[in-house]
Amino acid sequence: MILYGSTGSIGVNTLRLAKRYKIPVSALACGDNIKLLNEQIAEFKPKFVCIKNPKNKSYVNHKNVFSSQEGLEKILEECEDKLFVNAIVGFDGLRSSLKAKELGKEIALANKESLVIAGEFLKGAKIRPIDSEHCALNFLIKNQKNINKLFITASGGAFWKNKIKDLSKMKAQDALKHPNWNMGAKITIDSATMVNKLFEIIEAYYLFNTKNIDALIEPKSLIHAMCEFKDGTSTAYFSYADMKLAISQALFKNNQYKILKAIDFTKLPSLRFYKISIKKYPIFALKDEFLSHPQIGVLINRANEIMVKKFLNQECSFLDISKNIFKVLNHFGYPKISSIEDIFEYDKRVRYYLK
Amino acid sequence: MILYGSTGSIGVNTLRLAKRYKIPVSALACGDNIKLLNEQIAEFKPKFVCIKNPKNKSYVNHKNVFSSQEGLEKILEECEDKLFVNAIVGFDGLRSSLKAKELGKEIALANKESLVIAGEFLKGAKIRPIDSEHCALNFLIKNQKNINKLFITASGGAFWKNKIKDLSKMKAQDALKHPNWNMGAKITIDSATMVNKLFEIIEAYYLFNTKNIDALIEPKSLIHAMCEFKDGTSTAYFSYADMKLAISQALFKNNQYKILKAIDFTKLPSLRFYKISIKKYPIFALKDEFLSHPQIGVLINRANEIMVKKFLNQECSFLDISKNIFKVLNHFGYPKISSIEDIFEYDKRVRYYLK
Repeated sequence: MILYGSTGSIGVNTLRLAKRYKIPVSALACGDNIKLLNEQIAEFKPKFVCIKNPKNKSYVNHKNVFSSQEGLEKILEECEDKLFVNAIVGFDGLRSSLKAKELGKEIALANKESLVIAGEFLKGAKIRPIDSEHCALNFLIKNQKNINKLFITASGGAFWKNKIKDLSKMKAQDALKHPNWNMGAKITIDSATMVNKLFEIIEAYYLFNTKNIDALIEPKSLIHAMCEFKDGTSTAYFSYADMKLAISQALFKNNQYKILKAIDFTKLPSLRFYKISIKKYPIFALKDEFLSHPQIGVLINRANEIMVKKFLNQECSFLDISKNIFKVLNHFGYPKISSIEDIFEYDKRVRYYLK
Repeated sequence: MILYGSTGSIGVNTLRLAKRYKIPVSALACGDNIKLLNEQIAEFKPKFVCIKNPKNKSYVNHKNVFSSQEGLEKILEECEDKLFVNAIVGFDGLRSSLKAKELGKEIALANKESLVIAGEFLKGAKIRPIDSEHCALNFLIKNQKNINKLFITASGGAFWKNKIKDLSKMKAQDALKHPNWNMGAKITIDSATMVNKLFEIIEAYYLFNTKNIDALIEPKSLIHAMCEFKDGTSTAYFSYADMKLAISQALFKNNQYKILKAIDFTKLPSLRFYKISIKKYPIFALKDEFLSHPQIGVLINRANEIMVKKFLNQECSFLDISKNIFKVLNHFGYPKISSIEDIFEYDKRVRYYLK
């Protein structure tokens, strides 16, 4: 396989599975964590390696080091492996998804932003989601007819138990304490704001070609999705919260391996579901508008990326994240997108606007 | 369709669906409730009618009235309808199931006792279970691979909330108050003793050809079955508790109709699962032995039928039901069954023994 984002949380877990199930790794790419990359190179002996910044090339223990976006696309072209795991975080993962689609590769997609920003341009791509909720939906709807509605679940994030009035005081270190999932920093913040679930609704729209989808909070993260059928029945998908499961489902088509311990139903805490409060998670108010006008994805995504970075650097408050997303949407209205380059243009403009 | 047991709870609900979805009813059979049968005849105008006791023939408003087991089998032969709904209660339903198998009919089987008593002799029959848990399993395992284990749920019955020491005092009117399901008298008592779940384990064994099945208590009866997969994931099947759903799934292969209101997950009570306590439900201790020696079904079934009848007539205590099942098993050991007639013979012997 080709693995981009190898030193992040998804990347590291993907390599754990690659090691356990002896999957050859032909290419690795990461940002700036050269130390971990070198350990990965020593263990998996990839043919190709790519890093973000060409200045760091000399620190990488490999003869064939590419760099930057150009390097990522070159490796996709040169490497014959069919399976491409895109675990790059945020907008930076988009061009690699587009390139992989063009090359007809199977995309194991952890970079949900690719779909959020440019789902229209990824139609026809062979995508296997690395996202627990979408793996769950994939499984529940497989070979089924008479589906009425889809649901994905949200944990509620780090502030699920906090009061609304406390949110303004919350710091990055608070938001990074996710109660159930062990994930990267950006997605953990996106979980606390509910941006992640908004994105997953759009991801599901592109993957399953339906707008009849909603999200509910299940605070234990033991149920990941539900499927409602016309006759009044519903199915639900359970597992303990561990990203290795979604990764394995993207790597192996028929999963015969024991990836996690099975749920012991008698030891489960009591399960309940809650509506997502728009007062607490204002960003989720955008769900219907986003489904009607998916071209706003590029605006929401960039505004979110900028504000999450600021929040992590303690340069803004937690509530500023959603406030600025709304500000950007008000300022730009509905983008007019006729080619993929328009998306890159809007992305630039939002950067400039929020600078 | 052909409907036997038309005046019982399953029969009445089947006819509600037949009316709602305009399914022609060619034959009706019942026991002694001639008043209701006459109403059903007036509404559905069946070609054939059968009652238990020939003495009552003159009270039936129909030209073509058959009676007793002979009548039931004759109608199955003469009536060309492919779908046979067997909603007779207990052992009395067995010969009709066997006959329908012989005739190659599709058997919508509410009479789970047919399988419990003589599953070996129904192998190859086209059976669609009218049982919520088995409909749920049917749905969950459809087209799936890598299944590890099946679970069905139990409500715990009328005495779920009672203490063990109180069980000896319980009367029929208490046991008939099922908290979730509105069903006939016999199955409601079988629910309180857990005999029903023991039978459903055996039913699942014959339907799904696996012994890797267990039952758990889910006291709200909102989850009916779970399926555990090798990778550590599980699926669960939800619906409100209403027998019309299982009936509709046996009547319609692809259910496009809205049978029940869909589950509103945000309004569910909190859900929990419990192991079945052998102290409280002693009969469930037989599960593994029953799966290893399914030929004991004829003994357990007849002992149970006799004792349930006595209990309903206030001729024995609640705890006497399971005590006498164990007594019968100890007395007879493992039956030697080489033909279906041996089963009828053992059934007779248990009747004699418990007289």
